[in-house]
Amino acid sequence: MSSELTGNLLVAQSGGPTCVINSSLAGVISEALNHECIEEIYGGLNGIEGIMREDLIDLAEEQQRAIRGLRFTPSSALGTCRFKLRREADFQRVIQVFQAHNIRYFLYIGGNDSQDTADKISKHAAAAGWEMRVIGIPKTVDNDLVVTDHSPGYGSVIKHIATVVRELSLDAEAMGQHDTVHILEVMGRNSGWIAAGATLAKRRDQPNDPPHLIYLPEVPFDPNKFLDDVAGVLKREPFCFIVVGEGLVDQDGNYLTTADGGSDSFGHSQLGGVGDFLKNLVDKHAEGIKTRSARLGHTQRAAATGASLTDSDEAFMAGQAAVRAAVSGVTDKMITLVRGDSENYTCETGLADLSEVANGVKHLPRNWINEDGVSLNYQFTKYALPLIQGEVDVPRENGVPSFVRLIRNPVDKQLPAHSFE
Amino acid sequence: MSSELTGNLLVAQSGGPTCVINSSLAGVISEALNHECIEEIYGGLNGIEGIMREDLIDLAEEQQRAIRGLRFTPSSALGTCRFKLRREADFQRVIQVFQAHNIRYFLYIGGNDSQDTADKISKHAAAAGWEMRVIGIPKTVDNDLVVTDHSPGYGSVIKHIATVVRELSLDAEAMGQHDTVHILEVMGRNSGWIAAGATLAKRRDQPNDPPHLIYLPEVPFDPNKFLDDVAGVLKREPFCFIVVGEGLVDQDGNYLTTADGGSDSFGHSQLGGVGDFLKNLVDKHAEGIKTRSARLGHTQRAAATGASLTDSDEAFMAGQAAVRAAVSGVTDKMITLVRGDSENYTCETGLADLSEVANGVKHLPRNWINEDGVSLNYQFTKYALPLIQGEVDVPRENGVPSFVRLIRNPVDKQLPAHSFE
Repeated sequence: MSSELTGNLLVAQSGGPTCVINSSLAGVISEALNHECIEEIYGGLNGIEGIMREDLIDLAEEQQRAIRGLRFTPSSALGTCRFKLRREADFQRVIQVFQAHNIRYFLYIGGNDSQDTADKISKHAAAAGWEMRVIGIPKTVDNDLVVTDHSPGYGSVIKHIATVVRELSLDAEAMGQHDTVHILEVMGRNSGWIAAGATLAKRRDQPNDPPHLIYLPEVPFDPNKFLDDVAGVLKREPFCFIVVGEGLVDQDGNYLTTADGGSDSFGHSQLGGVGDFLKNLVDKHAEGIKTRSARLGHTQRAAATGASLTDSDEAFMAGQAAVRAAVSGVTDKMITLVRGDSENYTCETGLADLSEVANGVKHLPRNWINEDGVSLNYQFTKYALPLIQGEVDVPRENGVPSFVRLIRNPVDKQLPAHSFE
Repeated sequence: MSSELTGNLLVAQSGGPTCVINSSLAGVISEALNHECIEEIYGGLNGIEGIMREDLIDLAEEQQRAIRGLRFTPSSALGTCRFKLRREADFQRVIQVFQAHNIRYFLYIGGNDSQDTADKISKHAAAAGWEMRVIGIPKTVDNDLVVTDHSPGYGSVIKHIATVVRELSLDAEAMGQHDTVHILEVMGRNSGWIAAGATLAKRRDQPNDPPHLIYLPEVPFDPNKFLDDVAGVLKREPFCFIVVGEGLVDQDGNYLTTADGGSDSFGHSQLGGVGDFLKNLVDKHAEGIKTRSARLGHTQRAAATGASLTDSDEAFMAGQAAVRAAVSGVTDKMITLVRGDSENYTCETGLADLSEVANGVKHLPRNWINEDGVSLNYQFTKYALPLIQGEVDVPRENGVPSFVRLIRNPVDKQLPAHSFE
């Protein structure tokens, strides 16, 4: 592979936003400025979908202050998409856009689907004889990307949830003279990585601290065991604090609730999220118990105030590493985060094949979940605790966070419009 | 009135916690130490209910570090209650406890009901010939206490909500290539003070910034107008951001949803909160629109990280002022917050009759709500903006907030147990 490839760089973001995905973007831009072989630094709006529309912006025209501000600004500053490239015509279009704008470096920040997209684009470029480097940058609050030790975005979402649990549990404690069940629903449609993070709210050596029960998609839900679990906690504590991942499944592997509602195993019809589902179970089957539920929804992945500095810095580092790898001749790889072996947490970047990442899903190890199915052991804590250290400092204006927006100076379009049909 | 009343001070907290009610407690304790006429400083656990149980603790034995930590610790460090004093025997019991522990100063931190309780206790003490001073300290996220310009607790909850709206709206913007409706349900069972605060998320001179629609309990809900409102926003914006107060009512003044669910005006049965109610309306009556909803629940009133420093400082000041007033001979009053007339916001304390506060409810002025019924005008912003300035600095341990807990050294009980039946 040649390391002397001169041309333009295109970076885009894909999938659900996190509060550090812009930090990776900032890493890409600031590193790209260091390399003369990179002539122009373009951003693709709204992921691959916008790239097909030739919606490119000139990132070199953005103010330095804005690039710096990306390190504390949540969501995807370039916009994002959930578009799945399937048609041959769409792949060809992407390559045409690359050729029209002399894109020799394509960096795609996203989760599994995005790494799959990057992999396929890379193969189509090779087939078309268009020399370029394609590097993926990991991003997902779900933490389900393989090979990488963890994914940028995860540390911040669990730091937020652990913070909320610690705050809310004090509220519950003050009110908790009588039996009360508090339920907090968090994200995680397919895995319990996020819900598990709530365990970090417990003080050291205080296993009975809230959250008392954590329900994970990895453990099939049994309503009778659930009611027993709650009763067990209320025997020893004045209140019961539950964290539940939205993707809870029944014994047959079916989601307990869907966007349109669902029905519980006792036959009651349900609307709302899985937190309300659990609330209704308690309301209907346990007498004299008060219930409260909250659903953080997308607020948790957007919670930039109080985000993890470790997470934000690693996201930035991943962006930088992607540019360095591409410039040095690497292609078809995703940047990974590699944890050091020493007792003190260290993290550096590595590389994984895009195709390997695209097809894998990292599950929460079953042996990190205790036998009771509703709590995590020290192995999880040892893994997750370093990821939530430090806080991102977010400037304020008039008392609310002052985030940045890009100017988005468009790059002139060179091609006729693309047909998506 | 004599100002030479020597004896012990008892402070307690009541009603729903806020993230600054402990700041008022800290203000009471630190000010009480300055006055020799105050011999012992006691805390009553779990409000008036615990006082009847003679559950008093010795606050002078708490560490200075803990008292300082109360200024950033959410919830009620003394515990709280929602007990309503009704029986003559209960009032007599309270006075007996006061006499047994030589309580000459009783400070009660709470909302309307608590001020009513304080008022009645004061009258019973007078009838019993027990000389004492009773002062209320305002506390409520609902901001519905009369006479006082605003209530400690309110500034922090709306600062949190405005922050969440600003964060979440960036997420919505990045995803918002297609019609999407985002719904955030906030507290406020009887008034829209809290929901209104979401308007502070808008940037100056950007009236079209999220939140696009704010539904307040003050404005009877019309489902057809609601669907028109949403359609109107989606004509000009890629997404529609809605904030709704939990206590929304229909044209007849009935809550749209109850703890057990409810039914919408179109006859659909509903479970979950009012946010889900609105979500279902859109899902069923507007085609091709995606909906997302989040319900902050009690997390919003416990959100100490990012709380308003102005609010916390004023809560502390109210606690100090209560002690000073009581020592100077004042009784049967609640401390109020009085806004200065100057253009730059200033705030000092004043006094209001407990009986006046007990029986009043401060409504969101109708002329602060725009004609459209779903947005606030500059008068609200002018009122609310100063209340969210500055941030409370919360120390962390292992990446999560490090809050304080009181040691709670009990005061020896002097009386036989009280019968609550």
